[in-house]
Amino acid sequence: MSEEVKKVDNKRTIDPAALAVLEQKGGQIETAYDRYVKMQPQCNFGEQGICCRICLQGPCRITKKASKGICGAHDYTIVARNLLRMICGGTAAHADHTRHMAHVGAMMLEGEAPDYKITDLQKLYAVADRIGISREGKSDLEIFEELVEMAREDLCRFEAADEEAARWVSKSIIPERVKKLEDCNVMPRGVFGTIAESIAQTHAGMDADPVNLIFQGLKTAVADFCGEHIATDLSDIIFGTPRPVVSEANLGVLDPECINIAVHGHNPLLSEMIVSAAREMKPEAEKVGARGIKVSGICCTGNEVLMRQGVPLLTNFISQELPIMTGALDAMIVDIQCIMPGIRAVAECFHTRIVTTSGNVKIPGAYHVDFVEENAMDKAREVITLAIEAYKERNKDRISIPQIKHKVVAGFSLEALLELFKAVNPENPIQVLTEAIEAGELRGVVLLAGCNNLKRIHDENHLTIAKGLAKNNVFMVATGCAAGACAKAGLLTGEAVEKYAGDGLKKFLYRLNEANGLKEDLPLVFHMGSCVDNSRAYDLMTLMARQWGIDTPKVPYTASAPEAMSEKAVAIGCWCVALGMPTHVGVYPYITGSDLVNGIALQIAEDVYGGYFMWETDPEESVDRILASLDERTWKLRVHKQAAEKYETALSTGW
Amino acid sequence: MSEEVKKVDNKRTIDPAALAVLEQKGGQIETAYDRYVKMQPQCNFGEQGICCRICLQGPCRITKKASKGICGAHDYTIVARNLLRMICGGTAAHADHTRHMAHVGAMMLEGEAPDYKITDLQKLYAVADRIGISREGKSDLEIFEELVEMAREDLCRFEAADEEAARWVSKSIIPERVKKLEDCNVMPRGVFGTIAESIAQTHAGMDADPVNLIFQGLKTAVADFCGEHIATDLSDIIFGTPRPVVSEANLGVLDPECINIAVHGHNPLLSEMIVSAAREMKPEAEKVGARGIKVSGICCTGNEVLMRQGVPLLTNFISQELPIMTGALDAMIVDIQCIMPGIRAVAECFHTRIVTTSGNVKIPGAYHVDFVEENAMDKAREVITLAIEAYKERNKDRISIPQIKHKVVAGFSLEALLELFKAVNPENPIQVLTEAIEAGELRGVVLLAGCNNLKRIHDENHLTIAKGLAKNNVFMVATGCAAGACAKAGLLTGEAVEKYAGDGLKKFLYRLNEANGLKEDLPLVFHMGSCVDNSRAYDLMTLMARQWGIDTPKVPYTASAPEAMSEKAVAIGCWCVALGMPTHVGVYPYITGSDLVNGIALQIAEDVYGGYFMWETDPEESVDRILASLDERTWKLRVHKQAAEKYETALSTGW
Repeated sequence: MSEEVKKVDNKRTIDPAALAVLEQKGGQIETAYDRYVKMQPQCNFGEQGICCRICLQGPCRITKKASKGICGAHDYTIVARNLLRMICGGTAAHADHTRHMAHVGAMMLEGEAPDYKITDLQKLYAVADRIGISREGKSDLEIFEELVEMAREDLCRFEAADEEAARWVSKSIIPERVKKLEDCNVMPRGVFGTIAESIAQTHAGMDADPVNLIFQGLKTAVADFCGEHIATDLSDIIFGTPRPVVSEANLGVLDPECINIAVHGHNPLLSEMIVSAAREMKPEAEKVGARGIKVSGICCTGNEVLMRQGVPLLTNFISQELPIMTGALDAMIVDIQCIMPGIRAVAECFHTRIVTTSGNVKIPGAYHVDFVEENAMDKAREVITLAIEAYKERNKDRISIPQIKHKVVAGFSLEALLELFKAVNPENPIQVLTEAIEAGELRGVVLLAGCNNLKRIHDENHLTIAKGLAKNNVFMVATGCAAGACAKAGLLTGEAVEKYAGDGLKKFLYRLNEANGLKEDLPLVFHMGSCVDNSRAYDLMTLMARQWGIDTPKVPYTASAPEAMSEKAVAIGCWCVALGMPTHVGVYPYITGSDLVNGIALQIAEDVYGGYFMWETDPEESVDRILASLDERTWKLRVHKQAAEKYETALSTGW
Repeated sequence: MSEEVKKVDNKRTIDPAALAVLEQKGGQIETAYDRYVKMQPQCNFGEQGICCRICLQGPCRITKKASKGICGAHDYTIVARNLLRMICGGTAAHADHTRHMAHVGAMMLEGEAPDYKITDLQKLYAVADRIGISREGKSDLEIFEELVEMAREDLCRFEAADEEAARWVSKSIIPERVKKLEDCNVMPRGVFGTIAESIAQTHAGMDADPVNLIFQGLKTAVADFCGEHIATDLSDIIFGTPRPVVSEANLGVLDPECINIAVHGHNPLLSEMIVSAAREMKPEAEKVGARGIKVSGICCTGNEVLMRQGVPLLTNFISQELPIMTGALDAMIVDIQCIMPGIRAVAECFHTRIVTTSGNVKIPGAYHVDFVEENAMDKAREVITLAIEAYKERNKDRISIPQIKHKVVAGFSLEALLELFKAVNPENPIQVLTEAIEAGELRGVVLLAGCNNLKRIHDENHLTIAKGLAKNNVFMVATGCAAGACAKAGLLTGEAVEKYAGDGLKKFLYRLNEANGLKEDLPLVFHMGSCVDNSRAYDLMTLMARQWGIDTPKVPYTASAPEAMSEKAVAIGCWCVALGMPTHVGVYPYITGSDLVNGIALQIAEDVYGGYFMWETDPEESVDRILASLDERTWKLRVHKQAAEKYETALSTGW
């Protein structure tokens, strides 16, 4: 695991806008980039996962002298327990987001959330049909009510083998996968119950068996898939399923003449209201001398409002402090997840208001406006008023916005993608993709996902891998901060296709452009949404498996989290593997301290589930390994197809 | 926090039986005592709670150079998050136990668990009445069904403020406490949902506010109280509420002429069956030349079967490997929690079979018999058969059982305690206790609870504190491994009263002896059950508060966990504080790295909840501080009572 860290200084980014801010103000004002440098060297025990703090007798660390914990736990037990707890962290985070969505759904039905409504009836019907809710003779509200009730059940169901499997899992994936999950005893019933069960299993003196612990980890990760899928479905129903949209990205979207508000976090419930309220509050902004209110997004709240409202994307996770340092940001409104506490200290140096809005995400010293859905628009206006107040304190001499931004073509929900394919093949849209792979035009599909992590240079892995795969004719979808990296660098454009795509990919995309008669060319990478929306990407894999009539582990479809950081990424990676995807991760997870656990992730997982992990920190190497994972499956698929065709021919010609 | 470790060698125990085994075989065979020595020095970052591994960018450690994590998290955020996760660990462990009990309850109703039945109808009625289930016109089974359903609801309820509060909390504690918990927003709705919510709140980029995190920790801990209380109630209903029982404790209970089986863990579902099956399988034992089958207990499974069946207690947590080293243990049957993986390696040196029985507690290399309740007695027989097989391989030359054991008088459920008080005051039994405190005969009540932890010398804190409090006329109840320590040392006997009790305590206990005309004198310390049974001890506090007509923070009742080890102990300690108890802990929790968080635990908690923590590692000092915590409340109580009496007199005499 001897990773050479190329550049341990505080300019660890290849984003030119971020670099410009760091070069101008880095050092004077402390950011994550500085703190990363100060934190070196990092603890090797923790990095390898062989430090245990699960009981008060510890901490125990596995060393040559002490080869087991005080209780007798081996490295593999300690590593597997720590990993399972990380998966729980991610699953719980998504589940909490989902709980919030489901609760607002219930409030809407009670008439307690008047600012929310069912926006996308087609999605409501589609989800009801998928989940197995009969629509016959029911009003839209009744269907919605049953759906919300079922969502609550999937979250809360009592965890026991004789209970029904989580619906959003069992009805969203192909039957072969359902059977696999049931056979391996990793099909969750209820999301919360599964999390609690897993936390219990990692208590002192509980499970010592790493295989058992890791299987439970996969069960928990599948529960994460459940939670994520519900959240996406409910968001689409309430706010609309994303459709293609043109916007722009990177710090240059800040407008020095406007009041600038950044929405940051993960939950669309507030940010959608902010976007609406900002539009209607233009007169208030004008009163204080601004040209208007410009909302832009950070992280996945940014992705949510980019996808649905075309709101520009400011930046992604690790550079979240930098917009404040432009001096032009009046307020940063944060909701949940991936909010670095560091933003508060940076804001101290400027006029920027940091406003927390969620009861379970507070930052000492920040403004807190408790966002209650009963009064969503009022709360949004209250928050914007804080930004207007702040604007008055803005020091124009300190404003320095890097003039760097790129056009972005985003909004590619699975529905939007299929709509594009339909222009080529109205009968069977998914065949447009599968045939291109069969024909060798495309080498397969890759989901670019995950966060930023300063163990890598900011965005370098993301962009190098995306460009490398493009050159090799891989069809790419992206979510989360991976999509953010591509957006900021101009990869979500038709121009990038021209510049980076291989001939096959070009041909494929140009065919789609032509058939759809689009004003904007399709981009090199298709932005599918925030990190909670990864289920969209898996649904695409499911459609491909159905089209080919095969199980998902045979579909040439690989996930890559080049700069994984959060526990959510760990949970997502694990369900990708359990559901049949090769999954590349560009940083080492905390498991290398046990060869056994590492071996399960890298090899044994494949034997059982078909999916497996690849750790590779070098982006060029990553491209090669991702391509190899696709090629292996494509090759088998073609061999299988040729054999089947020969068999058909033989049958029809009487041998 | 500079603790002087008195004796860092591998004989860290004052239990003479444990010491005898360690002196004879310690060093040759590795035990926890050896591993503790090898693990020194332990990581100071972890001990202080200022190491963060919540995201893959870490680990981050707070140092002079790096005063914040890479994300900008301060020490207080890191410490509070880690603490909240520990509370979740404990709450989840108990909740999993409870889920198992509730599931068996549901199976009983379906006729799928034929070996279990409702044993204690009075308890069923009492719990139904307490929880608010009407019994009118319902059969016993119908009442049980509603109770089980409500238990499942308390576990699974959707977590939102507009949902009903967890019944087992809101109906078990006094209304003043319910109001306090609701006012502070720390009343849980569902146990699993609360755990998931808390794990989410500690995800990277979620809550940075230590007060918010710690309040959520208290909410989670109250959810732990809920889970524990359900488990105890269901166990009592199914297996009977404990009544006074005489047995014995310590390694000397092993019988070289019998097949010796130890049951170890926490869950009575299997161990109760083992006890029954062992009785009926005596003929099989005789066939292989044994005089019979002797079942004894370790840890809290030991406490469960001691309390209800009078099964002798072998030892407590940290010495769990030592019974194997006597050479006379044929099988150790383990269920859940606090099972040191180390037992397997020790058993390798002997003929002893280690048998795991729970799907979520496996140890590589151990026997595993998956315990299914449909077939409970068959499974128990299967497990005992393994012990009989092992017995044939026993090497008599290697047997060496320390001839040390003590009589034990145990079985003091709250019901049993009240029964004793009734002999003195049939109308109002609890008044026997409250009047003795008012009169100054008793100084207050202390709950001795918690585990073993080799940071202290095994059992030393437990016994020194118990004796010190006895001398000072404190009425003591005990649970878990604290009760185990007292049992092994002979403190659960009338002889110990004679030897250690102060005059007031003696007078109080002798009065009870006399009134009840008991064959066995009452003990110095009243064993209330396993660690999941701590709610019994809190119910006693509740009764006292009701009798005095005051809120619990005014009741002279302190908890002490002299050798706390597990996350369960952390959760229990936190609900003790939230529910109004001063709580002494004899080891430092992982929070001293933040003065702010430590200050909340030690002081601010009292301002809000009335309960607070005391960290004190020295047992003599601990006695003084515990006494001071009682005296403060007793003094106020008397002042209040005198004032009230004066007021009454004044009123009646017309001033």
